[in-house]
Amino acid sequence: MIVKKIHEVAKVYFDDNGIKGVSKQKLISSEDGAPNFTMRKFDVRPGGYTPYHTHDFEHEVFVLKGKGLVRGREDIEIHEGMVLLVEPGEEHQFVNTGDGTLEFLCIVPNYGEK
Amino acid sequence: MIVKKIHEVAKVYFDDNGIKGVSKQKLISSEDGAPNFTMRKFDVRPGGYTPYHTHDFEHEVFVLKGKGLVRGREDIEIHEGMVLLVEPGEEHQFVNTGDGTLEFLCIVPNYGEK
Repeated sequence: MIVKKIHEVAKVYFDDNGIKGVSKQKLISSEDGAPNFTMRKFDVRPGGYTPYHTHDFEHEVFVLKGKGLVRGREDIEIHEGMVLLVEPGEEHQFVNTGDGTLEFLCIVPNYGEK
Repeated sequence: MIVKKIHEVAKVYFDDNGIKGVSKQKLISSEDGAPNFTMRKFDVRPGGYTPYHTHDFEHEVFVLKGKGLVRGREDIEIHEGMVLLVEPGEEHQFVNTGDGTLEFLCIVPNYGEK
């Protein structure tokens, strides 16, 4: 059994063209022996956003804290206590529209975690 | 894109031999079109527990709230803000040892969600 405290997991920061004010933690991944899928946690600062993009694998998302917008074919408001399935091939971007940090889990097949 | 508020997702209650005071919600599953894995949320009442068992697939667990014990080869204390990988073939049981509800996400391959 692998057990971690999430505040001890390293954060990687992203801030460049197309992605702003985002940090990512790989909570459980193939590096821990996870056979199939990777659990990541993203923190997005107020005004920040993830890239607007698409890929051939799904996201399963659990919103832990904050509020925001998922931009895509239509814009969807999200907040704490919501879950989303972003299907393979769907364009999407997570934007923090609130005053606090937007925090969410995003689970992907291992091959989707570079 | 599939979007849900978790408080609107149906709860199934378990209370019999070997499992006590547990409710389960299928937040995202093959019924929503999830291609690979299923996100479930479990609530365990104070004094409650999930079955002591093992199976050939993994659990990826994110503890949302409360405190408890994972019983297995060794006992591990868990609380809010921890993640666990229960590997295929590992015996395990989640026990609520706190005064409030123990809430956690548990993600499994689709075939592990009966």
